[in-house]
Amino acid sequence: MLIGELGEFALIDRLQQRLQKTAPAQLVRGIGDDCAVLRPAAGMDLLLTTDTQEEGVHFRRDWSTPQDIGWRCLAVNVSDIAAMGGNPLGAVIALSVPATLEVAFVEALYDGLQELATAYDCPIIGGNISKASEHLTVTITVLGDVPSGRGVYRSGAQVGDEVWVTGDLGGAKAGLEVLLHPEILTGLSTSEVLRRYRRPRPRLREAQYLRQHGVLHSLIDISDGLSSDLAHICTESGVSAQLEAVHIPVSEEVHHIARALQVAPLTLALHGGEDFELCFIAPAGVVSRLQQTFAAHFQCPLRRVGTIQAGRGVTLRLPDGTQQPLSARGYDHFRTHTDDLTEAPDA
Amino acid sequence: MLIGELGEFALIDRLQQRLQKTAPAQLVRGIGDDCAVLRPAAGMDLLLTTDTQEEGVHFRRDWSTPQDIGWRCLAVNVSDIAAMGGNPLGAVIALSVPATLEVAFVEALYDGLQELATAYDCPIIGGNISKASEHLTVTITVLGDVPSGRGVYRSGAQVGDEVWVTGDLGGAKAGLEVLLHPEILTGLSTSEVLRRYRRPRPRLREAQYLRQHGVLHSLIDISDGLSSDLAHICTESGVSAQLEAVHIPVSEEVHHIARALQVAPLTLALHGGEDFELCFIAPAGVVSRLQQTFAAHFQCPLRRVGTIQAGRGVTLRLPDGTQQPLSARGYDHFRTHTDDLTEAPDA
Repeated sequence: MLIGELGEFALIDRLQQRLQKTAPAQLVRGIGDDCAVLRPAAGMDLLLTTDTQEEGVHFRRDWSTPQDIGWRCLAVNVSDIAAMGGNPLGAVIALSVPATLEVAFVEALYDGLQELATAYDCPIIGGNISKASEHLTVTITVLGDVPSGRGVYRSGAQVGDEVWVTGDLGGAKAGLEVLLHPEILTGLSTSEVLRRYRRPRPRLREAQYLRQHGVLHSLIDISDGLSSDLAHICTESGVSAQLEAVHIPVSEEVHHIARALQVAPLTLALHGGEDFELCFIAPAGVVSRLQQTFAAHFQCPLRRVGTIQAGRGVTLRLPDGTQQPLSARGYDHFRTHTDDLTEAPDA
Repeated sequence: MLIGELGEFALIDRLQQRLQKTAPAQLVRGIGDDCAVLRPAAGMDLLLTTDTQEEGVHFRRDWSTPQDIGWRCLAVNVSDIAAMGGNPLGAVIALSVPATLEVAFVEALYDGLQELATAYDCPIIGGNISKASEHLTVTITVLGDVPSGRGVYRSGAQVGDEVWVTGDLGGAKAGLEVLLHPEILTGLSTSEVLRRYRRPRPRLREAQYLRQHGVLHSLIDISDGLSSDLAHICTESGVSAQLEAVHIPVSEEVHHIARALQVAPLTLALHGGEDFELCFIAPAGVVSRLQQTFAAHFQCPLRRVGTIQAGRGVTLRLPDGTQQPLSARGYDHFRTHTDDLTEAPDA
């Protein structure tokens, strides 16, 4: 059945039935009124973030299942809550759908939203459905909280601090390249990079752990690419950063795919966006003490990749000791082209 | 200059400069980090609502200025906060724009957003800009608050209560018809209905006043049309409503336009959406006591239009005493056609 045949209010009823029934403690009133109503906990600040994903721009129906698309649309927002050291309270979904879309597709997308909502304890508490002229667009807003005054900002980096990242980088971009150039990549292992592209896992509990252990001067999630996102921290903090090429974590799978694509793995790792790993800035010496415990607990390595210095911008130090300025070549919605990789790699 | 030439981050800088500089007391951190941060007031519940407006579906650039579009996109969300008896704390704007759009257009749209934000004390505290494949889409989410446990729901109507509306109805729909059929309507006064369509004024302070005076059992804003929105209250409250045709408030201007369109004024008033007046349910006898004071203070009449009864659905009593069931013919995104008015009017 098509959405145009079912109608708006019947669709809302159907989607609501697919969502988790048990209301979280803070929810006073969920879907079905003019607003969702929550009772905030004492001593907490509120966090609010919004993001849009449009078919053909941010996702393609032939590259991801509807469940994947739902997961991903909510994941990118939860990642922004993680990037403040916060905790999600609930999400509202603004769905803009063409009347010719199958109802079953939207239902499956909601199943994916609910999977992420369950995994990250971020209930879907409201939303809006409207007609799109052509393309499916999903805009999600997440409300979160963090103990008052403990939110971690982009502006806290200090000269002498260390630059750290979680996990490894370039996987989501490699996954996108696999989908763009399937012919080059036959026979290679691609399951992990495709998983990273389709079902990114926000580092929510990892960020909370780091905040609770008092090691965060500054924090951002890597959504546009490390080069861009670290540049945001430098700009907001009034400092510069030097990255060590040799320490940038890249998985074996990304290495192999980069070779097949004839690009440097570092190009994927530094400029590829959507990994949703954390980049964080910590005082010298404090992270190494909890590095092993963290890695064992979260199955997630922490890697020191650079240093905060006086000045402006981000530079990259190559294995031979030479340094080069690193232009922020991560994702700009209006400037990035998927053929970026055909340019000469930086390193 | 086009947005594709300016780029995402430069555009964000430019738009930010157009927004109000003075931060509201509750705002800990506004635009420029991964989330906006607010410190909630003690003893308040939070309200969260989201709405999408897309070019070609919800607005047209040849019918409204970009300032009007900005005003309207934020107004519809503030109206949802009003519909809970609440107060807005801040808005986040998710803008999905084609690269070929003029930067000046988006700047003017932000001017309109800021005008509404100033008029209703609803600061713009964050957002996201992404590329649209074709059409401009604006999704806004507003966070608000209301004293704990005092939010007014759709579910509170009781048998014997009175049905009231603010202002008059059908104006926004009449304005839309003026834009659709300019040839029929030359020589008629249309300024007020066009204003209502282009710059709806949410009844925010009116709703707060009514809540503070303890007269609200139930409340909704008339966004889809009185027939639909009152039906939502009846469904959620498990009651029925009887409307009196003779009491439905319709302005002189709407009467004249309806005559030119050869439709019954009541069709516009009952089924035309987007008036953003309030429909509220009050215990018998209590509203008439504050009716005059309210009308003088807000320059806004209150009109009793019906009664809550046992049963289901909404009926309309005509001047001759006959009753007819009133189907919810208000706005359903996937079913309403602009030629609805060519059908036989209900009354």
